Amino acid sequence: MKKFINKVDDVLVESLSGFALAHSDLVSLNLDPNFITRKQKATNKVAIISGGGSGHEPLHAGYIGYGMLDAACPGHVFTSPTPDQMLAAAEAVHAEKGILFIIKNYAGDVMNFEMAAEILPFESATVLTSDDCAVVNSTYTTGRRGVAGTVIVEKCVGSLAETGADLQACKTLGDKVNQRTSSIGVALTSCTVPAAGRPTFDISENELEMGVGIHGEPGRRRETMREADAIVQDMVQAILEDFAAKNLATPNTEALLLVNGLGATPLMELYLIYNAAARLFSEHGIKITRSLVGNYTTALDMAGTSLTLCLLDDEIKQHWDSPVHAAALRWGM
Amino acid sequence: MKKFINKVDDVLVESLSGFALAHSDLVSLNLDPNFITRKQKATNKVAIISGGGSGHEPLHAGYIGYGMLDAACPGHVFTSPTPDQMLAAAEAVHAEKGILFIIKNYAGDVMNFEMAAEILPFESATVLTSDDCAVVNSTYTTGRRGVAGTVIVEKCVGSLAETGADLQACKTLGDKVNQRTSSIGVALTSCTVPAAGRPTFDISENELEMGVGIHGEPGRRRETMREADAIVQDMVQAILEDFAAKNLATPNTEALLLVNGLGATPLMELYLIYNAAARLFSEHGIKITRSLVGNYTTALDMAGTSLTLCLLDDEIKQHWDSPVHAAALRWGM
Repeated sequence: MKKFINKVDDVLVESLSGFALAHSDLVSLNLDPNFITRKQKATNKVAIISGGGSGHEPLHAGYIGYGMLDAACPGHVFTSPTPDQMLAAAEAVHAEKGILFIIKNYAGDVMNFEMAAEILPFESATVLTSDDCAVVNSTYTTGRRGVAGTVIVEKCVGSLAETGADLQACKTLGDKVNQRTSSIGVALTSCTVPAAGRPTFDISENELEMGVGIHGEPGRRRETMREADAIVQDMVQAILEDFAAKNLATPNTEALLLVNGLGATPLMELYLIYNAAARLFSEHGIKITRSLVGNYTTALDMAGTSLTLCLLDDEIKQHWDSPVHAAALRWGM
Repeated sequence: MKKFINKVDDVLVESLSGFALAHSDLVSLNLDPNFITRKQKATNKVAIISGGGSGHEPLHAGYIGYGMLDAACPGHVFTSPTPDQMLAAAEAVHAEKGILFIIKNYAGDVMNFEMAAEILPFESATVLTSDDCAVVNSTYTTGRRGVAGTVIVEKCVGSLAETGADLQACKTLGDKVNQRTSSIGVALTSCTVPAAGRPTFDISENELEMGVGIHGEPGRRRETMREADAIVQDMVQAILEDFAAKNLATPNTEALLLVNGLGATPLMELYLIYNAAARLFSEHGIKITRSLVGNYTTALDMAGTSLTLCLLDDEIKQHWDSPVHAAALRWGM
C-alpha cells in the first residue's frame, strides 16, 4: 500500500484539518467530536446535516456552504459517524426551523443518525438516499445503497432550505429527488482502506465489477473487461430498467446526467464515458439538459465510474440551478 | 491496461466530444483541426490561447471561459498539437487586440506554437511556463518544465485580458506570475498512455519518484517510500530553494498554495498533504492566503501529487480573485 499518509490513526484528523485550512473562508472544523460547519452560521432556516464514513471525498464536507449543507459529520474511513457527532453538529447549526438529516442508506449510518434524532432537543426529519439500482441489500445495507445521487439531493434540498421552507417541505423535496434519481457504478480496481493496508477485493487485469458499491461492496456480477461503449450501454440499461420498475416514464423527460469518478479514473475517460452515456440516453428519448462530470462521490483510490441520472421537473431544475458556494460545488456566486 | 476506452485511436475525439457536450453552455468544439473555443466569442480583447498534449485534463480545455482562456488546442495524449490547430483557433477567436499563446515549456509545443506564430496574420506574443523546479532539462524539454503553475498563469492573464489590457501588458503579467511560481511533483505510480498500453516507467511498491514530470519524465531521484510529512518536507524545501536561487524573498510574503492531484490520488490524501505543506511553508514565514486543492493538471492515471507555490502581490491577488467561469474553475459568477 502506497499512500500519502503518516500514521493510519491520524489520517482522518490530518485530512479534515487540511480541508478546514484550505477552505477557512467557508468552513469551521470541530474535533472530538468531529464535525464541520459553515463558517457563518445560517439563521432562520432548516439546518441540513449529512455525514457518513470518510473516503468518499468531496462527499460530504465539500458540500457545506450557502445553498447546500450546514454541517457534515465524517466517520472514520468507511465507518459510520457516531451519535455524539450528530448531536454536537445539530447543536451548532440549528436555526429555529429544525434539522434535516440526509443519510445514505447504510445500516450503521441509519442506526446512528436515528439514535441522534431520538435524543435531539430539536424537531428533525430524515431523507434516506437509495439511488444505487445495482442491487437490493448489500454488505452494509438493507435495501438499496445511497451513492452519488446523494449530491443531487443535498444540492436541491439545500437550495430549498435557503428560501426559508419548512422541515416537511425540505424532506418532501429530498424524497422526491431521491425517487427520481438512479445510479450504477463499475469498478476496474479495488480501493485500499488505509487501516486494512490491502485491497478490499481481488480483481484481475481482464475483469470489471458491474454494480460495485462505493466501499467496494459486490455488485451484480464480475464481468470480462470490454470496450467503454459496451460497459456504458449496460449501465444505461440498468438505469432505464430501474425507472421503468418505478413507473417513472423517461421518454421526453429532461434529465441531469452525473458521470462520477470513483477516485482514480482520469477526467479524459470520464468525458469519454459521458459522451457514450449522453448519446445512449438520448436514443431513449431522454434530453440531458444538466451535466456534472468529475470526482463527486469517491471510493478512495478505486478506478471506476458511476452514472447517475436524475429526472428533472421545474422544481428540481430551479433548485439545481440556484446559487451554491461550497468547496466542491460552486456557481452563481 | 484497463481503461474506459473504445479504440485507442478514438480516445481523444470521443473525450473532446464528451467535454463539449457536457459543457455546451460554455464551449464549442471544432474537429479536424481540433480546437475548442468559448461558446460566445469575446470582443475587443487579447485572445488567450493555450494547448498541449492531452492527458492533463482539465488542463487546458477546462479553463476556457470568461476570465481565462479563449481557446485551447489539444494534441493527442502527451503529444504536441500542430500549427494548423493553433492557426485555426487563432482565426476563430482573435478579437482585434492580438493573440497571446500560453505554452508549457516542452520542445514540441514550443516549436509548433512558434511555427504558428510566424505565419499568423495577427500580432502575437508568447508566455512560456517553466514552474517545475525539479530538474533543468528533461526528456522533452530544454530548460525547466511547465506544470501545474500554468493554471495560475492562465487565470491571472485571462483576468487581465478581460479588462481590455494590451498584448504586452498580458505577456508581462504572465511572465511575472511564472517567475513567482514554483512547483514540484512526486509519483507513487506511473501513468499508462493508451497507445502504449503499459506503464511509462517501472516503480516498485516501496518507491517514489521525487520530481516526476507530468508525462512520467524522471525527476531528481528514486527514493524509498516514506511518511507523507517527510515527502512533503522535501518538496517544500525544493520550492523554497528555488525561490532563494531566483532571489525572490519569501518571508512575510503572501502566497497561493496549489496541491494538485496527478490523476489517481484521493482527495482525502491531497488535503492531508495540504495540511502538512501549509504548516511547513508557514514555519518559513510564508502566509498562505489563497488555496486550491484537487486535480487541476494531471498525468492520466498517475498516483501522485504536486505542490505549487505562487508568491502573491496585489496585482496577482486581484487577478486570481476576479470572476471566472470555466468548466474546471468557477467563482464570482
